Amino acid sequence: MYKATVIIKTRKDILDPQGKAAEQGAKLLGFSNVSGTRIGKHVEFFVNTNNLEEAKKEVKEYSEKLLSNPIMEDFEFNLEEVDET
Amino acid sequence: MYKATVIIKTRKDILDPQGKAAEQGAKLLGFSNVSGTRIGKHVEFFVNTNNLEEAKKEVKEYSEKLLSNPIMEDFEFNLEEVDET
Repeated sequence: MYKATVIIKTRKDILDPQGKAAEQGAKLLGFSNVSGTRIGKHVEFFVNTNNLEEAKKEVKEYSEKLLSNPIMEDFEFNLEEVDET
Repeated sequence: MYKATVIIKTRKDILDPQGKAAEQGAKLLGFSNVSGTRIGKHVEFFVNTNNLEEAKKEVKEYSEKLLSNPIMEDFEFNLEEVDET
């Protein structure tokens, strides 16, 4: 079994309104050193196979088709082998 | 200057409806090996100071007060020194 971690980020040239909003709040609260906030997704799940190639394929397809928006976002993932518990 | 990365996760004992929804979609698309999907946030920003302690304090406060919901979520962060560009 593998544990997958997928990080999904809005592409650099695309506006991130959620990040902008958080940063406006930061200025109001006096965090004057903070800049360039970008908010993406951090997704974790298990892949119930011991075949690494199969796990990679499934994580990639799951990320492309369901977790991310391929037009606006990029993703990267990593897989870590874990014991079945 | 530091680059901060904050990872925010819904606490384990709290339901994650977004993760559940993605996983239902996964089953419909035939990704039968995927389980336990949890969707959190991955936040990146710059902290414009060269004082590590000051940067840590600001990242912690920004995460607690604006980026996360302390009742339902936990966060962890790391800081990486970067050149001012």
